[in-house]
Amino acid sequence: MGLIVKKFGGSSVGTTEKILNVAKRILAEKQPEDQIVMVVSAMGDTTDDLISLAKQIDEEPYRYEREMDMLLTTGEQVSIALLTMAFRSLGQKAISLTGAQAGMHTNSVHTKGKIVDIQPKRVVDELKAGNIVIVAGFQGADEFGDPVTLGRGGSDTSAVALAGALKADSCEIYTDVDGIYSADPRVEPDARRMKEITYDEMLEMARLGAGVMQPRSVEMGKHFNIPIHVRSTFTTKPGTFIREAYTMEEKDFVIRGVAHDEKVVKIAILGIPNNPGIAHQIFSTLASAHIVVDMIVQSIRNIEKNITDMVFTIAADDLVKARPIVDQVANNLNAIAVLVEDNVAKVSIVGVGMLGNPGIAARMFGALASADINIDVISTSEISISCLVKSSSIKQAVNAIHREFFPVKEQK
Amino acid sequence: MGLIVKKFGGSSVGTTEKILNVAKRILAEKQPEDQIVMVVSAMGDTTDDLISLAKQIDEEPYRYEREMDMLLTTGEQVSIALLTMAFRSLGQKAISLTGAQAGMHTNSVHTKGKIVDIQPKRVVDELKAGNIVIVAGFQGADEFGDPVTLGRGGSDTSAVALAGALKADSCEIYTDVDGIYSADPRVEPDARRMKEITYDEMLEMARLGAGVMQPRSVEMGKHFNIPIHVRSTFTTKPGTFIREAYTMEEKDFVIRGVAHDEKVVKIAILGIPNNPGIAHQIFSTLASAHIVVDMIVQSIRNIEKNITDMVFTIAADDLVKARPIVDQVANNLNAIAVLVEDNVAKVSIVGVGMLGNPGIAARMFGALASADINIDVISTSEISISCLVKSSSIKQAVNAIHREFFPVKEQK
Repeated sequence: MGLIVKKFGGSSVGTTEKILNVAKRILAEKQPEDQIVMVVSAMGDTTDDLISLAKQIDEEPYRYEREMDMLLTTGEQVSIALLTMAFRSLGQKAISLTGAQAGMHTNSVHTKGKIVDIQPKRVVDELKAGNIVIVAGFQGADEFGDPVTLGRGGSDTSAVALAGALKADSCEIYTDVDGIYSADPRVEPDARRMKEITYDEMLEMARLGAGVMQPRSVEMGKHFNIPIHVRSTFTTKPGTFIREAYTMEEKDFVIRGVAHDEKVVKIAILGIPNNPGIAHQIFSTLASAHIVVDMIVQSIRNIEKNITDMVFTIAADDLVKARPIVDQVANNLNAIAVLVEDNVAKVSIVGVGMLGNPGIAARMFGALASADINIDVISTSEISISCLVKSSSIKQAVNAIHREFFPVKEQK
Repeated sequence: MGLIVKKFGGSSVGTTEKILNVAKRILAEKQPEDQIVMVVSAMGDTTDDLISLAKQIDEEPYRYEREMDMLLTTGEQVSIALLTMAFRSLGQKAISLTGAQAGMHTNSVHTKGKIVDIQPKRVVDELKAGNIVIVAGFQGADEFGDPVTLGRGGSDTSAVALAGALKADSCEIYTDVDGIYSADPRVEPDARRMKEITYDEMLEMARLGAGVMQPRSVEMGKHFNIPIHVRSTFTTKPGTFIREAYTMEEKDFVIRGVAHDEKVVKIAILGIPNNPGIAHQIFSTLASAHIVVDMIVQSIRNIEKNITDMVFTIAADDLVKARPIVDQVANNLNAIAVLVEDNVAKVSIVGVGMLGNPGIAARMFGALASADINIDVISTSEISISCLVKSSSIKQAVNAIHREFFPVKEQK
């Protein structure tokens, strides 16, 4: 017996046929005593269709953020009604609730709202009445009762937060992959599905480029200490549990995974005075433009003249915004030049196992060296090590590192 | 300066282009001091599209009434968001509100709810803030906060009730005709658009077959004493005001209009004992099956044997349900026969002017006689007279009566 929150994304409920299949699957797996809350997204392309309607009214509809939320929250309202009908047509008591009805209180930052409080009394009451409760994901209501959407990955966040507020036994995220892999399976054919990963590792993996889970939902899971089970919509086998610490012995692997990110740009400001406050001057300017700077290396160009080079990476999407700011700062500092390289990519290893395990970095660098891959920049966090390499060699880099830490078992 | 509630139906907001046109029109007509509340329906075919989605889940989706309301209320939510965006893109402050947000409290009779109370505080606040307020028609929320739709003609009822609660100066119903006519213009080419009609006359016209306004919305207007202005979406000229009493001198016409109804069936139970309680026995049985009986005539077949015939009309749609009930009652009464005639139609005149104007009925009968039309059954109410005629002569009947009461002016 358990209280389980199950989240299904838009592709899982993309057609009425899929909606019926989801309902059948849930009923097939349900134990008699289970209490089930479903959190669902809008059907397939519904959100895009609604946005294109809005664009016919005004080319920039997101200027009307409150109205976009009024518009877009209908998408989930349609899918919760249909999924509830599907359960009822199969003889299962069920009821749909909008985000607002489920007690998802948000701030008023329309189109990218944050959950500030959850009062799930109605959900609890409906569960007690024997219902499967189907809640609209991605949405809540603010203090004025206005519908607010949660922004990217919002459905995952809704589900995990609701699971937390309900003190659920677990939160299952159904997706088009069957778990979290030790590397992107499209890049690394030998990538292994992990049985478990910690919240911190998952957050670090996401930060470093692994796309399965949105960081906010993982943070929410960590905050409420709710195990998150990432699993496939299309199979019934278990996926990956994201939780506080491992419950199983998985000592074989000192790292959890290899992440990579190709949407990276390296910027070098060359020949600037190595004075106190220089780094602050550069990076505070970028920070005030909401540009996140990732890897930072300061190297000495000329020790006698006390001249240095400042090298850092940013997300490729931020380059247009960052370039004039960097040029202005470089000019102020009488820099020799600003170099921008976009043919770079970042490969990282993540794992709590590297704490107190000093040989890990050396093994990573060695794997890259054996594959004849040059390392441009290195940065480390408590549970990760990242190397910047040429983007043309990123696949080999992932493969070489993965082989080092996850040796392929002999096939008989 | 005035507070005006304007209601636009689904065909008026059927496309994004039409939505933009509605917004432009409203702004062109708006006086600077006007406060405007719009009540809008779902775009064109949206409701039908949603119903067909639901039918893909279950062939009889209306079994899940609460979920149908959850589903269908999204239709208006989309149109209010888009219309609000249209106003804002034209530089006008505007805000959308769902039925629940506008304070439309309903009972819990899902898919055919009734408004039990309106608390339009949010509407008032948003008007004060300088907004045009766009409210979702056809919907409200019950005591549990669940969305409830109002059933047929619900958007008109929403608009008039909201106008009443707001103590609006008038309620304008925009539709695809430009007002209330003295007869159906498809039948009577000389039908005149009326400048005014009373609530009671409009209710009687609707009851007797005129289809423009739903009776519930007219009752609501009468209850709140809100003038209802029925006018065209496509022109700016005034239409017809429905109000308590005439404000203009329109003494020319003693009646307001000629209504007709072709969906009528005549039933005759022949040769039954003329005892006290016979009429009660017949009509209470039909009433308990929710069949409305309209014209009733009891005539003597044989005065010596005290045997009578009972003749009455019902809506053609009710015949399938009524037939076995009538046969059973006739059998119990040892009736000679039951005759059903479906080639009949009802023509009626309506007008408060006929009160204390005894010549009106004679003029109606005379007009029919001159056109060589036989009257089968006659019935009267305080402000109407109805005649049952052969359905093949209904058009001539309407024309003859209309010509009598609304003589065509000489063309020069």
